[in-house]
Amino acid sequence: MFRSVVVVFLLAAPGLFRGAAAQGKGSFDGFKLVDKTGNITKPPDYRDQYEMLGSWTVLDPNGNQMHSVYASPGTAEYYRRNKTFADGTVLVKEIHGTAAGQMTTGNVDWATDPPQVWFVMIKDAKGRFPNNPLWGNGWGWALFKANAPDKQVATDFKKDCLGCHVPAKADDWIYVKGYPPLHSK
Amino acid sequence: MFRSVVVVFLLAAPGLFRGAAAQGKGSFDGFKLVDKTGNITKPPDYRDQYEMLGSWTVLDPNGNQMHSVYASPGTAEYYRRNKTFADGTVLVKEIHGTAAGQMTTGNVDWATDPPQVWFVMIKDAKGRFPNNPLWGNGWGWALFKANAPDKQVATDFKKDCLGCHVPAKADDWIYVKGYPPLHSK
Repeated sequence: MFRSVVVVFLLAAPGLFRGAAAQGKGSFDGFKLVDKTGNITKPPDYRDQYEMLGSWTVLDPNGNQMHSVYASPGTAEYYRRNKTFADGTVLVKEIHGTAAGQMTTGNVDWATDPPQVWFVMIKDAKGRFPNNPLWGNGWGWALFKANAPDKQVATDFKKDCLGCHVPAKADDWIYVKGYPPLHSK
Repeated sequence: MFRSVVVVFLLAAPGLFRGAAAQGKGSFDGFKLVDKTGNITKPPDYRDQYEMLGSWTVLDPNGNQMHSVYASPGTAEYYRRNKTFADGTVLVKEIHGTAAGQMTTGNVDWATDPPQVWFVMIKDAKGRFPNNPLWGNGWGWALFKANAPDKQVATDFKKDCLGCHVPAKADDWIYVKGYPPLHSK
């Protein structure tokens, strides 16, 4: 009888640790998506497991876009407490085309699948990959496109990614103003 | 030594069950937000604990709006498998005003806090409250406004809520086309 209790305990322990991460203690391990040399994989489960940071609507006469931003569990709770992103935090931004229609609330746009592009960032507070051109300024930077959704195609974050983030430099390169959960529960 | 193993097992078990709910087995208990007569409370933790379904942009010359929609853990995974919402599923729609700016991607709108309005729906596959006018058509319906964010103010879902949902009747009253995670992981 005691032997079976020991077995159940071993099965239950991982569930307990996942629970702690989901509750926002800042312990999310984004580096499980990273190999030894710094290559970044897109998280396979972010739509089901990550939290919502917010959305952006890009208004373009040639067709609006919607950007949908997900963050690893606990990101917002940690940020509200510490005013910074926890080491290992993962952000995923989907770039969507939109459909438009006259709905009961007026003229409405909504995101259409599949995404055209995914941007993935992983917070690296320790400078783990000083010689990898996809790591720097406190983050790992990755880019995936619809024609090969699982293939990371950026080669140098300073060339491929940083330009769009310069205006957000003071906020650790992230446009935090568009993400309500970072500021209020 | 065996005694201490038993104690640890008892601590770990609740974490295991929470983990199962978060993994989308359809067991989310939205009715913990409902009292015996059917009064609905807004979930206090949806920004940190719920998953993202999607956003809508309402284009209005007098000021665009953004609607941000959250769902209780496991909603999308269950829907993809069963093409229906699990009993106890909770949906929260925030209605936001927007700010606008010229950003590196163009003319952009983003949601501004606090929300002006929250809509909360709880899936009720069992017709639990036949005499409560906030329950019907397979859901509980609730409305909260910014001037008293914790006070439910709808009185009759047919009068206060249903009008906007009629076009989505065939999809269990939900505009599923705007929620990419319901259709693809």
